[in-house]
Amino acid sequence: MINDASKSSDVDVQALTALLDGEYAEIRDLVRTNLSTHASVLEEAEELGIDAFRERVRELTVELAATGHSWMGFPKEYGGGGDIGASIAAFETLAYGDLSLLVKVGVQFGLFGGAILHLGTERHHRAHLPDLITGKLMGCFAMTETGHGSNVQALGTVATYDAASQEFVITTHGDAARKDYIGNAARHAELAVVFAQLEVAGKPEGVHAFLVPIRVDGAPAPGVRIEDAGRKMGLNGVDNGRLWFDGVRVPREALLNRFADVTPDGAYESPIENPGRRFFTMLGTLVQGRVSVGGGAINAAKVALAIATKYAVRRRQFEAASDGEEQLLLDYGMHQRRLLPLLARTYALHFAQDVVRTQLHEVFSGDRDDEQARRELEARAAGTKALGTWHATRTIQECREACGGAGYLAVNRFAALKADSDVFTTFEGDNHVLLQLVAKGLLTNYAHEFEDLDQLGMVRFVTGQAVETVIERTSVHKLLERVRDLLPGGDEWDQEAGLLDRDYQLAMVRFREEHMLAGLARRLKRGLDEKGDPGVVFSHVQDHVISVARAHVERLVLEAFVDKLRTLPDGGDDGNDDGNKVALGLLCDLFALSTIESDRAWFMEHGRLTVQRSKAISREINNLCRKIRPLAVDLVDAWGIPSAMLRSPDLVG
Amino acid sequence: MINDASKSSDVDVQALTALLDGEYAEIRDLVRTNLSTHASVLEEAEELGIDAFRERVRELTVELAATGHSWMGFPKEYGGGGDIGASIAAFETLAYGDLSLLVKVGVQFGLFGGAILHLGTERHHRAHLPDLITGKLMGCFAMTETGHGSNVQALGTVATYDAASQEFVITTHGDAARKDYIGNAARHAELAVVFAQLEVAGKPEGVHAFLVPIRVDGAPAPGVRIEDAGRKMGLNGVDNGRLWFDGVRVPREALLNRFADVTPDGAYESPIENPGRRFFTMLGTLVQGRVSVGGGAINAAKVALAIATKYAVRRRQFEAASDGEEQLLLDYGMHQRRLLPLLARTYALHFAQDVVRTQLHEVFSGDRDDEQARRELEARAAGTKALGTWHATRTIQECREACGGAGYLAVNRFAALKADSDVFTTFEGDNHVLLQLVAKGLLTNYAHEFEDLDQLGMVRFVTGQAVETVIERTSVHKLLERVRDLLPGGDEWDQEAGLLDRDYQLAMVRFREEHMLAGLARRLKRGLDEKGDPGVVFSHVQDHVISVARAHVERLVLEAFVDKLRTLPDGGDDGNDDGNKVALGLLCDLFALSTIESDRAWFMEHGRLTVQRSKAISREINNLCRKIRPLAVDLVDAWGIPSAMLRSPDLVG
Repeated sequence: MINDASKSSDVDVQALTALLDGEYAEIRDLVRTNLSTHASVLEEAEELGIDAFRERVRELTVELAATGHSWMGFPKEYGGGGDIGASIAAFETLAYGDLSLLVKVGVQFGLFGGAILHLGTERHHRAHLPDLITGKLMGCFAMTETGHGSNVQALGTVATYDAASQEFVITTHGDAARKDYIGNAARHAELAVVFAQLEVAGKPEGVHAFLVPIRVDGAPAPGVRIEDAGRKMGLNGVDNGRLWFDGVRVPREALLNRFADVTPDGAYESPIENPGRRFFTMLGTLVQGRVSVGGGAINAAKVALAIATKYAVRRRQFEAASDGEEQLLLDYGMHQRRLLPLLARTYALHFAQDVVRTQLHEVFSGDRDDEQARRELEARAAGTKALGTWHATRTIQECREACGGAGYLAVNRFAALKADSDVFTTFEGDNHVLLQLVAKGLLTNYAHEFEDLDQLGMVRFVTGQAVETVIERTSVHKLLERVRDLLPGGDEWDQEAGLLDRDYQLAMVRFREEHMLAGLARRLKRGLDEKGDPGVVFSHVQDHVISVARAHVERLVLEAFVDKLRTLPDGGDDGNDDGNKVALGLLCDLFALSTIESDRAWFMEHGRLTVQRSKAISREINNLCRKIRPLAVDLVDAWGIPSAMLRSPDLVG
Repeated sequence: MINDASKSSDVDVQALTALLDGEYAEIRDLVRTNLSTHASVLEEAEELGIDAFRERVRELTVELAATGHSWMGFPKEYGGGGDIGASIAAFETLAYGDLSLLVKVGVQFGLFGGAILHLGTERHHRAHLPDLITGKLMGCFAMTETGHGSNVQALGTVATYDAASQEFVITTHGDAARKDYIGNAARHAELAVVFAQLEVAGKPEGVHAFLVPIRVDGAPAPGVRIEDAGRKMGLNGVDNGRLWFDGVRVPREALLNRFADVTPDGAYESPIENPGRRFFTMLGTLVQGRVSVGGGAINAAKVALAIATKYAVRRRQFEAASDGEEQLLLDYGMHQRRLLPLLARTYALHFAQDVVRTQLHEVFSGDRDDEQARRELEARAAGTKALGTWHATRTIQECREACGGAGYLAVNRFAALKADSDVFTTFEGDNHVLLQLVAKGLLTNYAHEFEDLDQLGMVRFVTGQAVETVIERTSVHKLLERVRDLLPGGDEWDQEAGLLDRDYQLAMVRFREEHMLAGLARRLKRGLDEKGDPGVVFSHVQDHVISVARAHVERLVLEAFVDKLRTLPDGGDDGNDDGNKVALGLLCDLFALSTIESDRAWFMEHGRLTVQRSKAISREINNLCRKIRPLAVDLVDAWGIPSAMLRSPDLVG
């Protein structure tokens, strides 16, 4: 075997799994058991026709609900588990299996159930939570419209209050306002949470949510038109549909009235005065969908990496050494380069997901629920979702290619992984739109009065003096000093020295974020001073906006990894380092340096990287890959993916 | 509308289509008509079960054959069209439609028919070409084995000559030697071209091809075991299968004997003495498969780009200007950045494909068929295939995401495009393996005696003095001068000046290639001097190997674009520039600069780009995007994709 790096230390797989599973080991194991029990669904996804598979997925959704993990996030008084963090952990783990099932669970318990829980009040909870928790009542979440995918504030469905009958009249105005891609709508949902522009006494009050029965005894309710969205790239076990409402009447109590209500005689009232803030508060309660999708995506990537890694230590290709034996794929430098930085990034994202899940749990359990905590959570959820889902798309693609023609066979999982996860970058918020949200948050952090801005508002905001504040507060100069302090002086600057210094790595990604943010603020201001039209200015700097957000989230991800490492105890009594800590340290280094490497042009352009040091980073990455290579199988085994979920009999054998 | 770039000139769509279609306009139009006539196959791909769809695709393959374009490449005397270039152009155009049909046509006429044509002699041609050309005789190409996907030289099927009966006895030795992923094998093929290790009188003579009947009246022939490869990620209209041979006897004449033969009494003879060269000569005749797949991939990318571009000038999202109207997607800077460099690269690859198709035509029509021409063709075909197919994967993905949730619906084409084209990066040569071939060619160009080297040989080769030659001949210093000469002196160096100078762009990509190649040669030599083990050395430099090849092919692609531009006449009588030439010039600039931009870290690391100039390139790219934006729809329309092939009723309207 060609392998010039000796194994530096051993990974204790079981202990590493325990570390990764964390406080949710028990529920994750329950999900693992359920997945193994129902492993046949992976084949059924291929073999059953769409109709039969949809029924199968519905059936499984109900069956899993009975075992307890799907509805952990609901209050105990209605039959739930009262543990939001556990419900997310369960959802993440479910992503090891068939993703139609995952998404169906997400639609039913996360979107539909979550909307009723968070936007409704006791009357809605009492009426619906017990039945939806058992899957007896199936529902859907009707927000997205054909004409306004990401711009929810502009949607076109209208709910007019009729004081005479004390009812809301819900109507789809024009085909652009049809509800589209709605999971559960084509077949199974009886009740829908419908988002519509509320009009009371002729006055528009903005977007609100209403409970609307859409199906009675299996047929569309009067005034409701339902169309099947048809075959999709993947997730064909989920019945996505379109909805039109033609003067559908629902009682006044159908308004999910936690944040606003209409009195019987037609007065609109809300504890939140500012309409923009009201809208974003309502939307904010739905953040758990983003946290769930991000976590699911990261775990889908793990499945792909586990298969590709196991294949790469089994498959030989071409003779390279002189002993006449063909070389294992994972002993090739290029193959290491293709898989191992993705492995490191998956670990990094895993720990970042832990942080956002914990924040979600704290906010929604009331442990730490204030305005600031919610805003932090929303930004972090948006960013982690964007990076996690893009990571999944990229990782699954690379792993498929790394398994060659075998990767193309459906039995080897990549077909379903690719097709099913592809829309993760789009649903629960298009990734580019989410990163713009993150960037907006970064800019407006410094100016509270602008926090509810839409895109146009954000652009206009920079005309104000707030920009100066941003530039001042993004303390570039202070950071420059920090970066410099962390680097060895003199000739050593250009050498490998210090590359594995965690503080150096952190300083680099922090510097990038702050510098980009200050630069963006300056460009926005200058653009408006010169051109005036905010649309044009925004269009010109949009790639910069996205880069800032990405830099911000990558900094959070690296910090999450580093923080995790710092909680681990150092070495054992025998003076030896703990193998798991060593392995995680290597992965953290690889993640940090490959993050810097892929943006090394930027670092050079901004004077933070010399040519020599940039090359040294690439060499160090190759070196780290060689060190991680002997640990790779243990590192994917530690994810605890049930072997039946890998399928791939010829690849992982 | 937010659009600050005025339309610089008009595109004459019809004239541009004529330019792109070139000398093959007629046959491309025939294919376009056929695709429109049979457009229903796009829906059938979704609606029919696998068995029914396979039959449908077979039926269409035969039907299309009757209209004439599928077999243009065969000699007229056997019923073909005698025009290899036309056959490739037809295949490329067929990629606008269902890709199962494309691949079925490729298997039957390209791989199966092509092997008989190029490896066989008159007896095989007379016996089989007329029937295979009409589709009456269906066949398969049984090269790939489970255990040796890319390493054909190491395959395990054995053909032993039995002089007594004057037969070859063909046997699968071990399960790793089963033929795998063989198109047409699971259902339709009656005859197979089987690649096996020939043994004559106990002596191994290397890999040769044999005609083996595998099916008689629909049942497997005696001694042949056939297994269905099962469901795949895509291309489910093609019946891929596995084959095992258990002492199957075929007559002596079944050897495709153009390059080697066995006499009745068991003497092996070949006009090519060197076994390695013989093997590569045989394989070299199959190059048209790579040229076809590369061209097909580029056209599949066009379909995706056409849909995404048309959607982006139709769909509005978010308010950005002050007029209350939402902004068109393609007026967003980020959206331009996502789509337009891909559009430019697609044009560049189109012209690069023209060059490789022309070379193929010349070599196989005997217009210019010498050793040097064949080697150039093979390297160019490998490189264009790799870059073209990766481009397709990336482009289709980006376009799907750019169409949001709508892009996920099967009716909008991306589902099939993604799933069907995904394996293009793998079949007809894994892209990484192909790029290694290209790099080997670059190294061994300077040392003829090493031209038949396998990977191990290539690594060993660098111990020889040949490296010195490489280093000397890659005239880095001369190139440095050229780059410098093309740049303005003094302060201007750091400015935009000269970025749109075509000679500057060319000098940059040429410099990169030569510098990388010389560096690789040096690293190989130094590595062997220090470590000795060629396997380890190769593993360490493998990413460098891939980079060299990529840089080489991108240089060829840019040269093809520039050469094309130079053949176009300048302006009209009225002194105005021709709109199409202007538009192509913008695309060429965008391709050149975005190629440099994506590798700008390398250019900075190697002193070819200052920080200021690197930033100037990014600005110029944004500027070019804004200039191309008003032309974008015309530029995708010029590809002449039949509207029925776009489907997407809600996206392109």
